[in-house]
Amino acid sequence: MPVNETAREIDQLETPVAIVDLDVLEANIARLQRFLDRHGIANRPHIKTHKIPQIAHMQVEAGAVGITCQKLSEAEVMADAGIGDIFIPYNIIGPRKLDRLVSLARRISIRVTADSAFTAQGLSAAARGARLELPVLVEFDSGLDRCGVRSPAEAADLARTIARLPGLRFAGLMTYPSSETVGPFVREVRRLLQPAGLDVECVSGGGSPAAWRAHHYPEVTEHRAGMYVYGDRHGIHHEVMALEECALKIIATVVSRPTGERGVLDAGSKTLSSDLMGLEGHGLILEYPKAVIYQLSEEHGHVDFSACAQRPQIGERVSLIPNHGCAVGNLFNHMVGVRRGRVEVVWPVAARGALQ
Amino acid sequence: MPVNETAREIDQLETPVAIVDLDVLEANIARLQRFLDRHGIANRPHIKTHKIPQIAHMQVEAGAVGITCQKLSEAEVMADAGIGDIFIPYNIIGPRKLDRLVSLARRISIRVTADSAFTAQGLSAAARGARLELPVLVEFDSGLDRCGVRSPAEAADLARTIARLPGLRFAGLMTYPSSETVGPFVREVRRLLQPAGLDVECVSGGGSPAAWRAHHYPEVTEHRAGMYVYGDRHGIHHEVMALEECALKIIATVVSRPTGERGVLDAGSKTLSSDLMGLEGHGLILEYPKAVIYQLSEEHGHVDFSACAQRPQIGERVSLIPNHGCAVGNLFNHMVGVRRGRVEVVWPVAARGALQ
Repeated sequence: MPVNETAREIDQLETPVAIVDLDVLEANIARLQRFLDRHGIANRPHIKTHKIPQIAHMQVEAGAVGITCQKLSEAEVMADAGIGDIFIPYNIIGPRKLDRLVSLARRISIRVTADSAFTAQGLSAAARGARLELPVLVEFDSGLDRCGVRSPAEAADLARTIARLPGLRFAGLMTYPSSETVGPFVREVRRLLQPAGLDVECVSGGGSPAAWRAHHYPEVTEHRAGMYVYGDRHGIHHEVMALEECALKIIATVVSRPTGERGVLDAGSKTLSSDLMGLEGHGLILEYPKAVIYQLSEEHGHVDFSACAQRPQIGERVSLIPNHGCAVGNLFNHMVGVRRGRVEVVWPVAARGALQ
Repeated sequence: MPVNETAREIDQLETPVAIVDLDVLEANIARLQRFLDRHGIANRPHIKTHKIPQIAHMQVEAGAVGITCQKLSEAEVMADAGIGDIFIPYNIIGPRKLDRLVSLARRISIRVTADSAFTAQGLSAAARGARLELPVLVEFDSGLDRCGVRSPAEAADLARTIARLPGLRFAGLMTYPSSETVGPFVREVRRLLQPAGLDVECVSGGGSPAAWRAHHYPEVTEHRAGMYVYGDRHGIHHEVMALEECALKIIATVVSRPTGERGVLDAGSKTLSSDLMGLEGHGLILEYPKAVIYQLSEEHGHVDFSACAQRPQIGERVSLIPNHGCAVGNLFNHMVGVRRGRVEVVWPVAARGALQ
């Protein structure tokens, strides 16, 4: 039985523990849904942040058209849990993965992306073998230099290739994150595809910060946001969400006070991840906001309390907002749902470690 | 069933996948054991690197006196798997954890550490309640500014406190990593404890780099090394081990080639972790040693191939040595053991996510 399975109060939870405030989580889910609904943009939340089927169901029940998974294994976990519409914005490559993809496409609604003819050809061979029609979006680079074709001409070329390939249907364009470049890019692809009679049916944008600007990119028809459900210190820093909108916290214990200034928490890089996200320090300690978690070892967080008038005793418990919620959600086997100080549920992070 | 459970050849494994070469693993385990045996130092390997009971048993069968776990939950997993002697060099704090600790101490041989009277008092209350005698080592700081008392006088004070507290036995000193400061520190503590008739029975040093210098610190009676079983790029960089002594590799697939210079792997921060360990780039690609993994997103590794004469095609598989083996071992649910190109075993990483 997981260590914290029988706890009823937050104070009974053994540390380090990841907790999510259910009132805040529900409010976050509802708020983005309302916003995207108001602007006529389909909501397709990215479950990479939480990897928990129960939260995915909450998102769908609130009005999401389906979910986004970054990995095929995540999609398998979510489909097994009853989610019926999944977008995997990833180049799925290799015969075994393609076999699994078509198995999944036989039982639920699946869309994928490609940014190369190589990927498209693999998808086509698999879909054709399974007598399926697989909707494929072309991934384009909106300025982050990650995956994606780089020009509207390349995008249009790949769209025509997809449209020609048996078993595939060209279903639109996808990028991460949504940005000012999306509009001109999409309009140019539309123009280039007109002679072939190809329509850009879906334009899928993404990012939690960009979610609240989604209506400024009128070409975008659906949005993929992940972090907005939990919130994190990076989101607060960039004013994407307020501190009280952060549902995810880590409860940690001060296990050592080697000097008057220094303290050590039982939360290190295997709890918080090493993702700095461009910030100073590895998290915000709510009880000691001036403290700096200046270094992490694997199971210890090293804190400089010198700027704090009050400093903690050994054994004291503190609450942290981590820098990167998506990384923290990936390190715990269980997420503890709390409401007004009481433990309400312990969710297995079912799609965690599903890397293939 | 885990995705790679049925693969028989390395080429059949779906990526990204963590593999460990069993010949190399066995050689690494045997080599450190021989070295420490030769120098009369007890070997107490740290399982934080692998978190796999089967590897812990290999270490014990090779001659280790027991193992080291960094967390109580790890120790519970290892005890359940039949390991009978565990050292937890950690301040164990709080009534629930202390209950679990004494439960564990009832069934196997357990030693712990303290660096404060607070920790020692908690251990004493728990051990006394359970009518046990718990061996406790005093943790001292050998220069890394992490946990541990800072001076021989503090160490001696805490040793006397432990010796006085019911249910506890002062069992020696512990530090990480072993360094030049250990000798003078230990000798001074010995001198200070002589009037009380207290002996420093065990001096536990640690670190994989320091393991091969353990005989230069004659006061050290046992050594805790973790990384030496797997090896990593950090270890190679610091000449702790040769490239061919690295047992752990990640197999990844090139999923995108957005430009002539850039490529994208299906291994990102959720596969490799964000631990840079002071190195440039996030791993060594064996087939393209001049390539630089310059950035990670969660499920993508972004590679600059511009220094490589040959560059990969989309769909090509590559092998990586990660920067930090201990972090990677923590991200996968399964470790695939291979021998001469064949898959021999798939081990669950049973103590992964055991954070409390």
